[in-house]
Amino acid sequence: MHTKATTRIFIQSLSEVTQREVILRGWVYRLRMLSKTTFVILKDCSGEAQCVAATEVIEELHLKTEDVIEVRGRVRVDERAKLGCEVEILEARILNRSGQNLPFNSAADIESVGLEKLAEYRPLALRNEYVGNVFRIQAALLKFFREYLTDRRFTEIITSKIVASGTEGGTNLFELKYFDRIAYLAQSPQFYKEHAVAGYERVFETGHVYRAEPHSTRRHLTEYYSLDVEFSFIDGPEDVIQLERELLAYIFDRIEQNHAPVLNTYRKTPLPRMLDVPCWEFGECLELLKEHFNRTDLTDDLDPEAERQLCQLANERTGTAAVFVLGFPLLARPFYSAPRGSNGAASSFDLLFEGIEITTGGQRLHHREDLEAALRGRGIEPTNFENHLRMFDLGMPPHGGFAIGLERLTARILNLPNIRQAVLYPRDRYRVTP
Amino acid sequence: MHTKATTRIFIQSLSEVTQREVILRGWVYRLRMLSKTTFVILKDCSGEAQCVAATEVIEELHLKTEDVIEVRGRVRVDERAKLGCEVEILEARILNRSGQNLPFNSAADIESVGLEKLAEYRPLALRNEYVGNVFRIQAALLKFFREYLTDRRFTEIITSKIVASGTEGGTNLFELKYFDRIAYLAQSPQFYKEHAVAGYERVFETGHVYRAEPHSTRRHLTEYYSLDVEFSFIDGPEDVIQLERELLAYIFDRIEQNHAPVLNTYRKTPLPRMLDVPCWEFGECLELLKEHFNRTDLTDDLDPEAERQLCQLANERTGTAAVFVLGFPLLARPFYSAPRGSNGAASSFDLLFEGIEITTGGQRLHHREDLEAALRGRGIEPTNFENHLRMFDLGMPPHGGFAIGLERLTARILNLPNIRQAVLYPRDRYRVTP
Repeated sequence: MHTKATTRIFIQSLSEVTQREVILRGWVYRLRMLSKTTFVILKDCSGEAQCVAATEVIEELHLKTEDVIEVRGRVRVDERAKLGCEVEILEARILNRSGQNLPFNSAADIESVGLEKLAEYRPLALRNEYVGNVFRIQAALLKFFREYLTDRRFTEIITSKIVASGTEGGTNLFELKYFDRIAYLAQSPQFYKEHAVAGYERVFETGHVYRAEPHSTRRHLTEYYSLDVEFSFIDGPEDVIQLERELLAYIFDRIEQNHAPVLNTYRKTPLPRMLDVPCWEFGECLELLKEHFNRTDLTDDLDPEAERQLCQLANERTGTAAVFVLGFPLLARPFYSAPRGSNGAASSFDLLFEGIEITTGGQRLHHREDLEAALRGRGIEPTNFENHLRMFDLGMPPHGGFAIGLERLTARILNLPNIRQAVLYPRDRYRVTP
Repeated sequence: MHTKATTRIFIQSLSEVTQREVILRGWVYRLRMLSKTTFVILKDCSGEAQCVAATEVIEELHLKTEDVIEVRGRVRVDERAKLGCEVEILEARILNRSGQNLPFNSAADIESVGLEKLAEYRPLALRNEYVGNVFRIQAALLKFFREYLTDRRFTEIITSKIVASGTEGGTNLFELKYFDRIAYLAQSPQFYKEHAVAGYERVFETGHVYRAEPHSTRRHLTEYYSLDVEFSFIDGPEDVIQLERELLAYIFDRIEQNHAPVLNTYRKTPLPRMLDVPCWEFGECLELLKEHFNRTDLTDDLDPEAERQLCQLANERTGTAAVFVLGFPLLARPFYSAPRGSNGAASSFDLLFEGIEITTGGQRLHHREDLEAALRGRGIEPTNFENHLRMFDLGMPPHGGFAIGLERLTARILNLPNIRQAVLYPRDRYRVTP
């Protein structure tokens, strides 16, 4: 004989307590009411369990899907059930009722529900496996990103998102009323992470960055989550590229080890083998685009179509739809980019991944006088950047780094056509709610 | 015989390669030039090594502290050295010179250097052990916070910091120009995390929050880093308090296991045993304050002095200078606070820790009609909060949570008198740079 259960347990623990009385709490995920028997699929954060009751006992509760309930029941072995057991309901009570006429059910196939609606009804969408797993995978990407770097002597830093001026000169900045002055939202932690490597040698930051981009596309957000890495004592941009290869290879390995069944519901092919991703020079890319796609319109940058085309070529050649493009024209890159040779190329790269740029990175200038010259070359007076430049007097090592857009990475890995599918609360030109 | 070293290694690996030739890169942390011999303490992210050269060989480099150099040298056993070895310099070269007349040396005792200067010269300050370790410990707190929760089925979420209105009604919000409308910086992810527990049951978020507080004190920042936790199916605020006890106990254990020597340089006493932290009712606290400190001025909230006084009492009674205060008056807490009994108290608590409030938390209302009544009771029309309230129709479980201010926690643990010592780039009423 057992004493009455008093503590709620997770559904995933049910198979350890067969024949015992338990308390479960969760959502009515599916409901099938027959004349004699009612089946409730109860869902909590650990899983789903089939709970069974005599209909005459349970019908007075007027259960419906999405209701929040507590079940007291007895666990019995059932070989047919996924968990190996089901729960005979002894008693059930409503903890909170869901509303009438919800726009969709969390257990339904909601791939056809529009993005606006999914964001507006976020709790319901998160309870759905297809949507919920997007952000579980995103959280896992974030975890493995931090894990890899922390294990390799990188220190996590937190830098301010309220800044007095932009890192790139002042366009696309969100303006903020900061007491009696104007401040801006940071477009990137670029300067701060460069300062920090002069102290810690290796740093990373995970956090929001802001771009007041007046267009609204499937690729762009005004607020996105940037995975920033910066480290010192590099010999060239190849060291930065190699670190990113190894970092992404680690993250993808861990995702496949821990989340393979979920991953397979989103994509048909395994995650790319990142250690094999080639590095092509920018000039070489222009030639390839001309040769294979007859494109002659590009000179100093790639466009979204070129990104797709280069990924396609990479896939044909290496079996992996990803490529590092190195050596963009210096003048098309930020002033702090180190040169690559003397032909006006930058030690600066993009990682194109399954059709889209997910990373910008490179080696940076580390001598103050080179930064001053670069600014002057762009018609900018170095004194405007004095607060940044004086950090280069404090023992600044050769360094480089990169930033990965978390939403873009998530969207590509999970094969989501619109970046908004990889953000809980997307922000764009027209959207500041919910 | 060995071939010439070509790859830079970390200082910490030196003892594994005695007698071998190595390349090191780092900063000249200390420098002692005698007539015959010059000693360079080289520092990198992994440690410090003594490097030795004949002065006549090295003096032409005109080394000075903070210079960034590369050393090619041979590792020789030296029992007197901390690493068990030192490096005989065969060749050295400057990678980047530091400036003349820096305001302090990174190797110096810089406890007396002002906070402004430390922030202004952040790279130099981070290279200093006393300052650098503050943010290493902070990163470790953050890591163990995430680790504990991830291991217990909490999902990390990322929510927008650009919002259409405030969670608490509209005071102390930073206003943002968002294209052709006004938006605000989020004061807290409170609403979003409540919505998310209706989907995921258990969530956490680590990120910036913003308070446009017009005062500038040792306790306040306008931008701080909030460790937010929210979870479902609780029976009362005691469950929330117990989770925070266990979470902090875990974090502190891990910090002591991994960082004890560093911790001991900041504080004389061990970290508090968080599992023992008592929970006192608010009314009881007012009585204690009256009895022991003759205070009769407090009615619906505590003030900084009362926070110190209650921690002192807790320390006298339990040996731990921390206490949860539960049951603040409902009207002094946010509208979403659940009541505690029927005497106008809230199921809402603060954690006072070594003299200061580091957490606010509690059980929240989870029935839509209760939230509407609470809003009306405060003279707020519920339709103003409709975008929030309708989430409570989607299957909202009983839930609660808390938020820990990372900078306050760091400052208390490391015994730092001013919260600005626990922020790389503090933001307050007067400061948006560096």
